[in-house]
Amino acid sequence: MANPYKHIQEEAYEANMLLPKLNLVIFTFGNVSAADRNLGLFAIKPSGVEYEKLSPAKMVIVDFDGNVVKGKLRPSSDTKTHAVLYKHWEKINGIAHTHSLYATAWAQSLRDIPIYGTTHADHNTFDIPCAAPMSDEMIKGDYEYETGFQIMDCLKEKKMNYEEMEMILVGNHAPFTWGKTAHKAVYNSAVLEAIAHMAFVTEQVNPSSARLKEALIKKHFERKHGKDSYYGQE
Amino acid sequence: MANPYKHIQEEAYEANMLLPKLNLVIFTFGNVSAADRNLGLFAIKPSGVEYEKLSPAKMVIVDFDGNVVKGKLRPSSDTKTHAVLYKHWEKINGIAHTHSLYATAWAQSLRDIPIYGTTHADHNTFDIPCAAPMSDEMIKGDYEYETGFQIMDCLKEKKMNYEEMEMILVGNHAPFTWGKTAHKAVYNSAVLEAIAHMAFVTEQVNPSSARLKEALIKKHFERKHGKDSYYGQE
Amino acid sequence: MANPYKHIQEEAYEANMLLPKLNLVIFTFGNVSAADRNLGLFAIKPSGVEYEKLSPAKMVIVDFDGNVVKGKLRPSSDTKTHAVLYKHWEKINGIAHTHSLYATAWAQSLRDIPIYGTTHADHNTFDIPCAAPMSDEMIKGDYEYETGFQIMDCLKEKKMNYEEMEMILVGNHAPFTWGKTAHKAVYNSAVLEAIAHMAFVTEQVNPSSARLKEALIKKHFERKHGKDSYYGQE
Amino acid sequence: MANPYKHIQEEAYEANMLLPKLNLVIFTFGNVSAADRNLGLFAIKPSGVEYEKLSPAKMVIVDFDGNVVKGKLRPSSDTKTHAVLYKHWEKINGIAHTHSLYATAWAQSLRDIPIYGTTHADHNTFDIPCAAPMSDEMIKGDYEYETGFQIMDCLKEKKMNYEEMEMILVGNHAPFTWGKTAHKAVYNSAVLEAIAHMAFVTEQVNPSSARLKEALIKKHFERKHGKDSYYGQE
Repeated sequence: MANPYKHIQEEAYEANMLLPKLNLVIFTFGNVSAADRNLGLFAIKPSGVEYEKLSPAKMVIVDFDGNVVKGKLRPSSDTKTHAVLYKHWEKINGIAHTHSLYATAWAQSLRDIPIYGTTHADHNTFDIPCAAPMSDEMIKGDYEYETGFQIMDCLKEKKMNYEEMEMILVGNHAPFTWGKTAHKAVYNSAVLEAIAHMAFVTEQVNPSSARLKEALIKKHFERKHGKDSYYGQE
Repeated sequence: MANPYKHIQEEAYEANMLLPKLNLVIFTFGNVSAADRNLGLFAIKPSGVEYEKLSPAKMVIVDFDGNVVKGKLRPSSDTKTHAVLYKHWEKINGIAHTHSLYATAWAQSLRDIPIYGTTHADHNTFDIPCAAPMSDEMIKGDYEYETGFQIMDCLKEKKMNYEEMEMILVGNHAPFTWGKTAHKAVYNSAVLEAIAHMAFVTEQVNPSSARLKEALIKKHFERKHGKDSYYGQE
Repeated sequence: MANPYKHIQEEAYEANMLLPKLNLVIFTFGNVSAADRNLGLFAIKPSGVEYEKLSPAKMVIVDFDGNVVKGKLRPSSDTKTHAVLYKHWEKINGIAHTHSLYATAWAQSLRDIPIYGTTHADHNTFDIPCAAPMSDEMIKGDYEYETGFQIMDCLKEKKMNYEEMEMILVGNHAPFTWGKTAHKAVYNSAVLEAIAHMAFVTEQVNPSSARLKEALIKKHFERKHGKDSYYGQE
Repeated sequence: MANPYKHIQEEAYEANMLLPKLNLVIFTFGNVSAADRNLGLFAIKPSGVEYEKLSPAKMVIVDFDGNVVKGKLRPSSDTKTHAVLYKHWEKINGIAHTHSLYATAWAQSLRDIPIYGTTHADHNTFDIPCAAPMSDEMIKGDYEYETGFQIMDCLKEKKMNYEEMEMILVGNHAPFTWGKTAHKAVYNSAVLEAIAHMAFVTEQVNPSSARLKEALIKKHFERKHGKDSYYGQE
């Protein structure tokens, strides 16, 4: 019988394999998932398995409540965070989580990443938010499940749209990113790492560096994402 | 029929492919063009296409007013900046634009890069200028076109010659570099990234680091570029 | 006659070869050993031999008092430190020593690495200790032997268990790490380097960064190492 | 007729090719030479030729007064600095010059690199000296020749022996290193770059970091270089 999950397993596999290639992870420090909205399921990296030992068939199939549907291996320990986000954000089909060096350092510093340049504005129009660490109750409860809510609440509170702001720092933890495909989620992780590295150096070079002015923020975002966008081939 | 643009398409292709090899770009964050003064045209990277999917034939042919002459793909969104510079600076045949980490961080900090050593003086004799961010009118107008003028005006104001100063930071954006060939423009992008990285560390190691003294600036520049130069094989 | 040490020679060889692959050493700046508790022996890198010239057969066999049992080459100059730790810490079978950039810089700064995030808490629950430099008497005496005691004394004084805290900075020197296998010891060296790099950037980004709160420390450590751990496949 | 310079051409070639492999140079930013004391000559990289285009036969043969003895290409623009050092320091047979990032940044900061740890003490027992920039007269005169004297004078003034201190920063310029072979000179360039990077991070992590104490300096240097050394295989 044909495997009905093959397409998301392959998509999740390819996206996971990009993480070490883009220097975003060492060992098993990260995971990517790919969802199929018709099936109401996603494929995710198995927990603690090194990238060179992965294969599409090892990707675990999980529903949007976090239940394993198919797979011999245990899914990523962050699986419930993915499930919560898929359940509530209906237009995303990919999620990535890494502990990349500079983005994680910003998450540890508990600061939003200021929008200092057009590299940032090419991707979104706000400071990259850093969600506050969770309350002790949330941590002791269903931790990974609550991490998903912490992410959603942070965006809600800052009045940000998950379709525009496709990246977040989870305070004291590390970044999560998402997008319309698993590949886009990984792309966002690499972009976030570059933005985090640049913002760190920017502040060292000039401690009174100012945020980008509004006209430039709009211009760069709209040339890539606005209705009259003229970046790319579509 | 023979392709009359083949030579600049190949030159632009080779130069674009150096960007990821030299760690100056991730994904599609950069573009290089190569001009032929007899044709009055240049070949430039198509917009938003990843480097591994490029080929010489995909390079778009554009005139010095920014009109596409040949090519099925849309040219780089920065094409008009290239066109303006080619139109006004008659001795350049290559332009490169990247978002390399350290040069972009300096651009974000809105500071010129001070000339701290001979690595810098081997290439030019001034602080690397950082052009001020454009006025809101220029940004809302023909943005990429105005970026070209912003670059030219900055050099003019600082009384710099584009044949000597082949690199600039565009404030809050990123570096542009140029030269007699597309390869030289990319070379200049890599040199600028090294200079930017070194200058950052220099200031961290000694916050009161001073600019290089005049005699050393002249000596290093002239041994490479003066009429009695003795660097290289020509 | 069969070589009774082949298994630990191969294990030590494989683990040593990971050091340059993981960018933890240049030239001969590091060494890994692998022990067999039944034999009461360990295999260790020969001193001053470059990684590309290593082979399993060149690994030197040493007992837990530091005596060479088999091998034509002189063992690593740090051999006695390994011997002391194996002798006193009965549950470890691998030790790694590197001069990796960021961990060594922290060792040179004589500071413990504060626990700033979950990357750290995934591996242990305390600041990574930096053992004080030894007294002049210890240095002039049996230096490498005393280094082992300095490491053990530091953990004892801070009431840390070597089964949980598998890494240490030796003040003014560099990191040592250990674990149940030689591979785990090298894994810990790479993790420590990442933690050291992240902590450096964290403090630069926010000089008043605070240590991770207790609930998060516990949660992350226990999901990986507690009795109800749900990370990995075992 | 056999080529009497083949051995030093090959040695110089191999050593030059290590520079890009060890990430110490980009493009043509560096040069290495290898001397034969019996011939009274050295082989050095030709000026401005990229590493991938080098071959042993392209290495230029020069005497200790800086005169080209054999070679169709112009020798490195730094040739006279090499010649002066070979002429006055009779026990060295290799010299390397790079613009590696961190060592060059320290040179630009005009600071000696403090001896903060055993990575440094494994190689020498003093702060790495930074020679003052030359007087304007020296710069306008025979610049590269004077650079050699500036290096020698700096060591003399600080009472350092070139057989122990095999590395120096030339203020506002970049590092020079040397040794008994060309390979050792390049090794020293890589070690210096690592020491420079570590010292930068050390000071950022703890601005009041103190120099290594005397007992540790002696111990580490002597275990590698003293008469009872026990590092390596000789």
